Amino acid sequence: MTLTQTDLTGRSILAGESVAGTGATVHGADPATGEALEPGYTLIDEDQLAAATAAAEEAFASFSRLDPTAHADFLERIADNIEAVGEELVARAMAETGLSEARLTGERGRTTGQLRLFARVVRQGDHRGVRIDPALPERTPAPRTDIRQRKIPLGPVAVFGASNFPLAFSTAGGDTAAALAAGCPVVFKAHNAHPGTSEIVGRALADAVAEAGLHPGVFSLVYGQGSRIGQALAADPVIQAVGFTGSRGAGLALVATAAARPVPIPVYAEMSSINPVFLFDGALQGDVDALATAFVGSVTGSSGQLCTAPGLVFVPAGPAGDAFTASVERALATTAGQTMLTAAIADSWVAGVDTLAAQEGVYLVGRGREGDTENAPAPAVLGTDVATFLDNEVLHEEIFGAASLLIRYSSPEELVHAAGQLEGQLTATLHLSEDDHATVETLLPVLERTAGRILAGGWPTGVEVGHAMVHGGPFPATSDGRTTSVGTLAIERFLRPVAYQDLPDDLLPEPLRRANPWHLNRRLDGRLELAGEQA
Amino acid sequence: MTLTQTDLTGRSILAGESVAGTGATVHGADPATGEALEPGYTLIDEDQLAAATAAAEEAFASFSRLDPTAHADFLERIADNIEAVGEELVARAMAETGLSEARLTGERGRTTGQLRLFARVVRQGDHRGVRIDPALPERTPAPRTDIRQRKIPLGPVAVFGASNFPLAFSTAGGDTAAALAAGCPVVFKAHNAHPGTSEIVGRALADAVAEAGLHPGVFSLVYGQGSRIGQALAADPVIQAVGFTGSRGAGLALVATAAARPVPIPVYAEMSSINPVFLFDGALQGDVDALATAFVGSVTGSSGQLCTAPGLVFVPAGPAGDAFTASVERALATTAGQTMLTAAIADSWVAGVDTLAAQEGVYLVGRGREGDTENAPAPAVLGTDVATFLDNEVLHEEIFGAASLLIRYSSPEELVHAAGQLEGQLTATLHLSEDDHATVETLLPVLERTAGRILAGGWPTGVEVGHAMVHGGPFPATSDGRTTSVGTLAIERFLRPVAYQDLPDDLLPEPLRRANPWHLNRRLDGRLELAGEQA
Repeated sequence: MTLTQTDLTGRSILAGESVAGTGATVHGADPATGEALEPGYTLIDEDQLAAATAAAEEAFASFSRLDPTAHADFLERIADNIEAVGEELVARAMAETGLSEARLTGERGRTTGQLRLFARVVRQGDHRGVRIDPALPERTPAPRTDIRQRKIPLGPVAVFGASNFPLAFSTAGGDTAAALAAGCPVVFKAHNAHPGTSEIVGRALADAVAEAGLHPGVFSLVYGQGSRIGQALAADPVIQAVGFTGSRGAGLALVATAAARPVPIPVYAEMSSINPVFLFDGALQGDVDALATAFVGSVTGSSGQLCTAPGLVFVPAGPAGDAFTASVERALATTAGQTMLTAAIADSWVAGVDTLAAQEGVYLVGRGREGDTENAPAPAVLGTDVATFLDNEVLHEEIFGAASLLIRYSSPEELVHAAGQLEGQLTATLHLSEDDHATVETLLPVLERTAGRILAGGWPTGVEVGHAMVHGGPFPATSDGRTTSVGTLAIERFLRPVAYQDLPDDLLPEPLRRANPWHLNRRLDGRLELAGEQA
Repeated sequence: MTLTQTDLTGRSILAGESVAGTGATVHGADPATGEALEPGYTLIDEDQLAAATAAAEEAFASFSRLDPTAHADFLERIADNIEAVGEELVARAMAETGLSEARLTGERGRTTGQLRLFARVVRQGDHRGVRIDPALPERTPAPRTDIRQRKIPLGPVAVFGASNFPLAFSTAGGDTAAALAAGCPVVFKAHNAHPGTSEIVGRALADAVAEAGLHPGVFSLVYGQGSRIGQALAADPVIQAVGFTGSRGAGLALVATAAARPVPIPVYAEMSSINPVFLFDGALQGDVDALATAFVGSVTGSSGQLCTAPGLVFVPAGPAGDAFTASVERALATTAGQTMLTAAIADSWVAGVDTLAAQEGVYLVGRGREGDTENAPAPAVLGTDVATFLDNEVLHEEIFGAASLLIRYSSPEELVHAAGQLEGQLTATLHLSEDDHATVETLLPVLERTAGRILAGGWPTGVEVGHAMVHGGPFPATSDGRTTSVGTLAIERFLRPVAYQDLPDDLLPEPLRRANPWHLNRRLDGRLELAGEQA
């Protein structure tokens, strides 16, 4: 195993081969100091990219047919290899992102945990979606032939690393894990803000491919210019789907490229969400300071650079809401800015807050203090009322970082109306007591059409990786609200159904054979039949 | 009940109201005679369309929350109402389409059958996709909160009637049935080639809405100009998905409109397929005449106007293939043209066959004779070789109607290579014997990536409506290969997942409540738990 080496190469991994790019060199940088980090990473060109995608296409035939045990073992091996790197991984990620050791240690656990969760999914096999309508030779007026359905992987998938999750939404992150679990080779484009972290994980993954004896085209890690190589990747005829987490502009550019292909492909872009929170009067009858502190923690954690950070809070007018607002101001005053991911992201956050604060009818609720490092601006909470909010599109825009906007509302009707004007969101959060149920019942249908996940009593940051999670939502939260990027349902975004009619048993794929050699649950004439029930 | 009246009104049904359009008047026509059929249908304008979509939006709140029994009863009532019309429906459809009584009687049975099948799906409830990850308060390092997932309907859906299936892919056809089963109100745009058939079924459906006491906005039937009202419908902000079956040009125009919206929506367009058939030597050792006769029947049935008609047949070079080709010529010679759907479609078919026949390297295998009616051109089968086929894009284009192209191949390798060059298809059909299994094993992975359904030993026309059917496939067969337009899986195209985290039980939707009041199968911590197993 070579993966624990700290001598980073600055090279892409094209189907198992370490390859220097022909283009410019980029460096990661420590955002806390501005210092450039070695080594430099050479960016690849289109021909080098084509080698990676061609290898992915070559790998598809065998990888898509892997038996469940070998397939699951491979996913677990990736997780093992990532853990085997040890603390060097977290250390490099800290240097490249400014995120804390605790956060990155947790994120590493989440990354390996979701690989192992997908391994269990692959072993269990329900994602293969087996449906069998047996022949009915005696049926009148016409007999029915035998029809069997399963889901197959779409083909090679392009995954783009996210700046804000250098592990869990990057090289071996959620989309990569879901695509590999589906049976799709992955060409991963690293985010240039954490190239070393990407290389460490990419080598762990490529080593797992080699150790498992798989075709090396199952995984490539490329460094390239986003507007050139990223677009070329989405346009490559081999690629059958795209997974992306990032800005609305970059996400929409990928959507446009994918739609303009001779054969269009799906793009799963998670883009933009302000994650509204609805505070009801009843929730403010308890410990308001605890609520305000938890809110400020959710806004400022990871310097606010979380897709689900609560950027909007509806607070009732009146004394209970006033008390909450005052408590937020106090909690914020003791909060220091934390290093943001890059200087550009910090600059963009400052500009966004300045713009928001300058809008008519928007006032400052409170600010923290600046952090001691570079790129650690002071967290900010601003305030306004519903009418101002509804009147001004600027107030609906995401400000990526530790900022939030409190919106004072004067009646349940006004609240429900305002909720109906929101764009698509990843999450919507309720703080309520039993007295508020009547209003919440009116609000819930609105929120279901707006968001992918609805919470009561907590905060939207901290996305559980499980079977029931939805991390997705209507546009522009994502480009495709029919799916999720976190949780086991994510595997379905990389699958499509195929029906087999009257094929001889030995020509059928294993999941569909009469003897059910993979012991799968199956839908027989519409009725679910669990594998354990079978003779 | 008013639905058995034969006095057609020539009007749209906007949320239960019979409304005359403000625009031009169109007439159906009997394609066998060219005779215009009364009454004329007045086309609506954008304001009238907006009334229908606004009503659909209003209806969504209650319709999407219907309990399974009322919901399923409603779908069955539509089927009952269609049957209650009696033979007038088939008679009108015959006059408007030139299709035979037997075909349309069968199509009516399929239409009511799929409504009743979806009623069973709604009662059973697996499409709600319930997943529950219970709270783990003792988990370390952090407890897990309760997370529950279900699928909800997308919102109001636009469905476009197809010219070639005036019942099963039209007013109360597959997409309408799937959308209504999902809980989505439907605004249906009639195909102007069979307006009377559309009205009869539309009234049966609107009556079912009224009889079931549902909001009238659950269903509207509109007559309008495709390039104007059809596009306006796809662009309407209320509409959340589009179902379409028709030409590639019209389908792609809807895809472009939907993608250009401020909030893009999915378009499920079934567009273009030539449905390759692969004849192996082994299959030609038996009764070649029977095979040729069945093939000609599949090509010429419904005048070839079926999405799954076999437009391409790979035939081995050599004496067995020669015998098949000669038999096709003989079978075709005794075949008469049947009335096509419209004069425009017949003209387009004639032009397509002329163009194909004029290509270098393409020769005539055989022709039938013209039919006795108008618009009943003589069926045609042409021939070529693989090299010519691969060299000329014209030979890959669908000719909608009774035509097919035999491609002589000289080796299994050539066959597999040619298959890899095909565009996305609805179906791929194999005729083989045990001796051919080795080649077929090489071909199957190619076909899985090309087609939505793979058949052995039959013909692709005649699409079974069941749980395992896939009527879909990679672009350009459809605009979204992740779904099907026929069979119960079609309900999923109109659903999206929503997660609920830590909601009080009485605020949870019924499918997710702890007591499981709807007796649904549920995925508990990843493991399927059948309702029957529960305490």
